[in-house]
Amino acid sequence: MFGECLENVRKNVPLVHNITNYVTVNDVANVLLACGGSPIMSDEPEDVADITSICGGLNINIGTLNKRSIESMFVAGRKANELGHAVLLDPVGAGASALRTNTAAELMDKIKFNVIRGNISEIKTIALGSGTTKGVDADVADAVTEDTLDKAVAFVKELAAKTGSIIAVTGAIDLVADPERCFVIRNGRAEMGKITGTGCQLSGMMTAFVVANPDKQLEAAAAAVCTMGLAGEIGWSRMQDGDGNSTYRNRIIDAVCNMDKETLDNGAKYEIR
Amino acid sequence: MFGECLENVRKNVPLVHNITNYVTVNDVANVLLACGGSPIMSDEPEDVADITSICGGLNINIGTLNKRSIESMFVAGRKANELGHAVLLDPVGAGASALRTNTAAELMDKIKFNVIRGNISEIKTIALGSGTTKGVDADVADAVTEDTLDKAVAFVKELAAKTGSIIAVTGAIDLVADPERCFVIRNGRAEMGKITGTGCQLSGMMTAFVVANPDKQLEAAAAAVCTMGLAGEIGWSRMQDGDGNSTYRNRIIDAVCNMDKETLDNGAKYEIR
Amino acid sequence: MFGECLENVRKNVPLVHNITNYVTVNDVANVLLACGGSPIMSDEPEDVADITSICGGLNINIGTLNKRSIESMFVAGRKANELGHAVLLDPVGAGASALRTNTAAELMDKIKFNVIRGNISEIKTIALGSGTTKGVDADVADAVTEDTLDKAVAFVKELAAKTGSIIAVTGAIDLVADPERCFVIRNGRAEMGKITGTGCQLSGMMTAFVVANPDKQLEAAAAAVCTMGLAGEIGWSRMQDGDGNSTYRNRIIDAVCNMDKETLDNGAKYEIR
Repeated sequence: MFGECLENVRKNVPLVHNITNYVTVNDVANVLLACGGSPIMSDEPEDVADITSICGGLNINIGTLNKRSIESMFVAGRKANELGHAVLLDPVGAGASALRTNTAAELMDKIKFNVIRGNISEIKTIALGSGTTKGVDADVADAVTEDTLDKAVAFVKELAAKTGSIIAVTGAIDLVADPERCFVIRNGRAEMGKITGTGCQLSGMMTAFVVANPDKQLEAAAAAVCTMGLAGEIGWSRMQDGDGNSTYRNRIIDAVCNMDKETLDNGAKYEIR
Repeated sequence: MFGECLENVRKNVPLVHNITNYVTVNDVANVLLACGGSPIMSDEPEDVADITSICGGLNINIGTLNKRSIESMFVAGRKANELGHAVLLDPVGAGASALRTNTAAELMDKIKFNVIRGNISEIKTIALGSGTTKGVDADVADAVTEDTLDKAVAFVKELAAKTGSIIAVTGAIDLVADPERCFVIRNGRAEMGKITGTGCQLSGMMTAFVVANPDKQLEAAAAAVCTMGLAGEIGWSRMQDGDGNSTYRNRIIDAVCNMDKETLDNGAKYEIR
Repeated sequence: MFGECLENVRKNVPLVHNITNYVTVNDVANVLLACGGSPIMSDEPEDVADITSICGGLNINIGTLNKRSIESMFVAGRKANELGHAVLLDPVGAGASALRTNTAAELMDKIKFNVIRGNISEIKTIALGSGTTKGVDADVADAVTEDTLDKAVAFVKELAAKTGSIIAVTGAIDLVADPERCFVIRNGRAEMGKITGTGCQLSGMMTAFVVANPDKQLEAAAAAVCTMGLAGEIGWSRMQDGDGNSTYRNRIIDAVCNMDKETLDNGAKYEIR
């Protein structure tokens, strides 16, 4: 099932408009190309409506937000909603500053998102209005573990119902849920946390997956999570003595580039709850 | 001939001021260093005149343009013209939005460019005032092929005459023309299109080549195209099982770094029309 | 001694707020993760006070400065001073433009810096009010060599006394000084200059080292310099035929990622003057 979602990306080559942070933007572009999509970046209010119009989807990531880019998020988001494009929100650092928390809340209020993807602290923040986000990483106390899994699954389903968006929470265990079903995914490796931007990359890629699979968006979002996690496993298996996080970054994107239907279908580790 | 152009870059170490997008800027800086140049980036209107004054050339790339950076393009462009520096325009996404199309047109109106480099859709847009650019990639319908080559060569020569700039169109076949002569170049690989920013990298490198070879700018621009394309071939030959677009990106810049006169002269595939 | 400084970084995982240029920001984030710290980037005036408040240290790098980011540097710097956080200044390109020179001077006037790190041309500029900076690289005429070492050591000690900041000058020979002691460090390789941003990376990493070692900040700053230089040596030893500056960049960050106490203590080459 997930393999087919990937093949649809490679077949349709969805053009994705990214309003995203300048820290990880190059990796987002390369992972979008790796999975079969096509990236374009634009964050000037006068440019974004035109750019988003020629695209199939919009990925809004609030890392390194500024007043100009925030305005662009609203302009592009409204236009994308108007055109029926898939729109994703990555609320980077929500809970870490008032501006980030408030911007995420206002975006959720004014823009309809197909998917909201973040770590558990960010997602708790947007659910509860305040959070315990430690910088751009999740707070350990919030982590989704086998012990807290039942509660976490209920939480994301409820949030999906409340927001009308697919909710994707990534961490040691990943959750991708609509109000009825939650994919619980166990791909990936802890070492991915030593690379900047694997979450941002996933958000870009997930947008492409959702655009290319309009009739099964929940599966597509979950397929993107499995693709990234499995690429993390494959990339790690190619690490050699002396390699570290910089080389690991390249190997993960390489593994996305080489991912095929069979590899993904065989390597995906998930259950539905 | 091309090898000598490269050697002049390594000998003169031209300092190039780049006003460029934040997606591929790091790769632009590293490829400039790889070819023997020296990069500096600045896009604040109050900073750019000073910065461009200490440089030998200016590379203006309109990807992720904003109002501040647009103002800087004009300020820096005028100063560079005043000082007789080489100036290159990379009209990223011209045709994809009104702001990009209009900015490119206004830049061409107000600033004298030694070289304009883009994909065929972007170059058609600036020639005709409107275009069919699909995001930041060329439209397939526009592609320069063996079948359309004669017409394409005539088109770029005519545009070179009309603009007074060297015109460089890159794609499966690359064209670099002044009004009299057109270099038709067949280096490179299709897989380079799966990496973000090979075009941006080429624009940065081409600026350095033109600065270091003031008396043969057409040859220098063509030499830069061959260097990038040949680096794409050499980089590909070093790819191993499991490598993908992220590693390929590194191997291309590495190949530029290791390029020498003989390798370039032997590997360059071009004819003059 | 240096190995212990590194271990403290890995143990304390200092969160570092970076206001830095968009050219090398991704590498700064990855090297911070590699050494054991945690990076966050923010440069919007309304965001930076909150972000810096949750961090342990602040790294201000004036490359690609603009009016918005300059305002953020002052807002964040004041807040960090108020909270007693470690603050580092990397005056990229001071001497190359009036805006950069003046911004560095005003920052030094209004903000208390624990450390100021730059190349010799930048440091001379901030000491003397004007300089000979050639772009973002040091002028050859300024270079610290065995012949000029005594004079250079006296100069940095004096500047440390005058500014109340630890002064770190990096180049072929690196100097890290307070008014009484100067670490003279001979790690590193000339080839590191062919990679963009090794200086920016060092500034980010140095901030993490100083935050994690509050009681021995001079040693911590020197330990960061040795870590970066030694990583440059180890990374170089892993280079293979055909590798160039792009791969070297990855191998250096990888080497930081794999650095341990023993390797650093055994590989550090320094004397105290």
